[in-house]
Amino acid sequence: MAAAISPLAPKSFPELPEIAGVRFATGTAGIRCKDRTDVMLALFDKGTEAAGVFTKSKCPSAPVDWCRARLLAGKARALVVNSGNANAFTGKAGVEAVKLTAALAAKATGAPGNEIFLASTGVIGEPLDAAKFDSVLDKLFARADPDGLFEAAKAIMTTDTFPKVAAAHATLGGVEVSLTGMAKGAGMIAPDMATMLAFVFTDAPIAAAVLQSMLAKSVQTSFNAITVDSDTSTSDTLLLFATGAAAKRGAPKIVAPNDRRLAPFKQALDTLLLDLAHQVVRDGEGARKFVEVQVTGAASAASAKKIAFSIANSPLVKTAIAGEDANWGRIVMAVGKAGEKAERDRLAIWFGGVRVAHKGQRDPAYDEAKVSTLMRADEISIRVDLGLGKGEAKVWTCDLTKDYVAINGDYRS
Amino acid sequence: MAAAISPLAPKSFPELPEIAGVRFATGTAGIRCKDRTDVMLALFDKGTEAAGVFTKSKCPSAPVDWCRARLLAGKARALVVNSGNANAFTGKAGVEAVKLTAALAAKATGAPGNEIFLASTGVIGEPLDAAKFDSVLDKLFARADPDGLFEAAKAIMTTDTFPKVAAAHATLGGVEVSLTGMAKGAGMIAPDMATMLAFVFTDAPIAAAVLQSMLAKSVQTSFNAITVDSDTSTSDTLLLFATGAAAKRGAPKIVAPNDRRLAPFKQALDTLLLDLAHQVVRDGEGARKFVEVQVTGAASAASAKKIAFSIANSPLVKTAIAGEDANWGRIVMAVGKAGEKAERDRLAIWFGGVRVAHKGQRDPAYDEAKVSTLMRADEISIRVDLGLGKGEAKVWTCDLTKDYVAINGDYRS
Repeated sequence: MAAAISPLAPKSFPELPEIAGVRFATGTAGIRCKDRTDVMLALFDKGTEAAGVFTKSKCPSAPVDWCRARLLAGKARALVVNSGNANAFTGKAGVEAVKLTAALAAKATGAPGNEIFLASTGVIGEPLDAAKFDSVLDKLFARADPDGLFEAAKAIMTTDTFPKVAAAHATLGGVEVSLTGMAKGAGMIAPDMATMLAFVFTDAPIAAAVLQSMLAKSVQTSFNAITVDSDTSTSDTLLLFATGAAAKRGAPKIVAPNDRRLAPFKQALDTLLLDLAHQVVRDGEGARKFVEVQVTGAASAASAKKIAFSIANSPLVKTAIAGEDANWGRIVMAVGKAGEKAERDRLAIWFGGVRVAHKGQRDPAYDEAKVSTLMRADEISIRVDLGLGKGEAKVWTCDLTKDYVAINGDYRS
Repeated sequence: MAAAISPLAPKSFPELPEIAGVRFATGTAGIRCKDRTDVMLALFDKGTEAAGVFTKSKCPSAPVDWCRARLLAGKARALVVNSGNANAFTGKAGVEAVKLTAALAAKATGAPGNEIFLASTGVIGEPLDAAKFDSVLDKLFARADPDGLFEAAKAIMTTDTFPKVAAAHATLGGVEVSLTGMAKGAGMIAPDMATMLAFVFTDAPIAAAVLQSMLAKSVQTSFNAITVDSDTSTSDTLLLFATGAAAKRGAPKIVAPNDRRLAPFKQALDTLLLDLAHQVVRDGEGARKFVEVQVTGAASAASAKKIAFSIANSPLVKTAIAGEDANWGRIVMAVGKAGEKAERDRLAIWFGGVRVAHKGQRDPAYDEAKVSTLMRADEISIRVDLGLGKGEAKVWTCDLTKDYVAINGDYRS
């Protein structure tokens, strides 16, 4: 099932600046396979602040529950991530495994157990044998390196066909600060295979509550605006860690969410999260097309987003795109089924820049040959204007191909 | 793209009793292709009462709008159904086409135009040239036949691989009455191809308001409890016509929805609608497995149904079933993403009769070989118990195969 690198992968990897106060190491705990890198340790200097957003699943994994509880204090000294086992739907054994992992990480790093964050990805429902981390974490602690981000991004891959990393810079009170991030994910979830994890690191001195406020907002237009297959993992985790090391270079400590000096940082965070989120879609299982869906003129922004996702999740829209068919009838269908306010006779639809339908019917001027050419590209844009109000939203998805079915269904072949 | 008959098709067709007061005829209007049967006329004796339920799409087709308006009076004399063109997203031209079709049918049959019901299935967004019905409807009127149901069911097929018909009997005040029905549909929608239409006929003398009340209820556990691909047509239409002819044989006229004499009829209607709805799933595009999803122990019936559909629509659940994999981790995922009340540690999951998970973890007694055997069958049942309340629901779906992607995406191959 190991796939070639997605044709939609970025052509090159960015320069990844070291973030003062963060070190990485990777190793093999033998969680599922004996011979692959399956555990990543990130170490943070004392004083690092943390924020996070998680899956909305009503059946979250044990590590998700653990992290949510740790965020109440908002302090982080270490992050342990394993692949091979999601420690989800593992009941009390799962809770014990999380506690043991944190205890082992505390022993190895000297950090307090309640400042250790955890994430797991892999099989659902199998007990995680956390004792396997025992000897490994000591070694990782010993060799942790500020330059280890790229290797760390590779260690958390499952069905991903390429490691997902990003970097951004901003000024904070006139001082340059840096952000780096990594993500994994190829389907929204796939037990044995995939879930969405993302970790972002910065040297900016920003208090946890401020980080949380920015992250919750920024995620709405990035990780909460993408879909591969409409399925939601039990384990989706996005964590943001700020070491504050830039304070030594004169960066001001930010403690209020409305501090105006935050604007460039917010923008950098938005850019970085969107970059990582797009990379997840570009590595969507079986994906051959990267698709932007924009909805304008909706009754509200929430309504626009719901309609955009109705389009982006529609199997019939996604298969039409796989077939390079500008099937705007399926867009109409997806708008109609969203359950949001829509008036047939005000609807307009564009593929690329070409309007194919407006005022409740096919655009008479619509050039089918031109649209056919657009549909053969790797990147497709769809816009729907509802002609009702000012609500707008943009989401991203990929096409639905036979390879998606093969990746997720070909167990017996 | 013409497919072999679905492997899930019923092995035989039922006996179809003639319904006194109903006649059928089929013909060729040349709506999309010159040489295929594409129009069906059903004629009803004077006094026939009608009820209907329709797509919830916010962008319904012109015939759906037309039928909704006709139901205010609840009287029917004729039904005209065409395939080849859905007359959906056709703006004012669509409204004109509907009016013209009704006028032509009125001229051909002598019935008042506002007692004529219409349904269309086929391409979205192309104007329907209703003038083509002109000469055809006269001929159909002349040769309409009480025995024509089966041919009528064939005339409305699009990507269906088999005609869908059903029959049922009940007593009403001690007198036997009959019901027959037909349906078409293979995806919930697919412009150029599919939508869901169903028509039911009975000789029972039941007032329109009573029919409407029964139909609205019965549809909840039949047509509103199935999914092929989560996509909803702009044209879905279910109409029920009661000629009242059984009154001549002594059946009582029923005018109150709570009339106790209705109980056997209600049961027969439920059975017939469920039969037709199951046939639609059995003909689901690319389907190789017929899947029943039962949710018990939910906080409410509505919550149970939402969770059941979350499972039944999940691409990852459906591809796992295609792969004959009892991947209960994906069931947990689908329960979690439904957004309904659920507690991981109370959840239990069965494939067939075999419990694979309970109390938040894998069932230690779970026999994987036994479940593997079950998964190889044509019909799969999944049960989830939430352990919270008494809410229950049952829905039906099919697997997601490469053939679904091929049928809906292979335009260029």
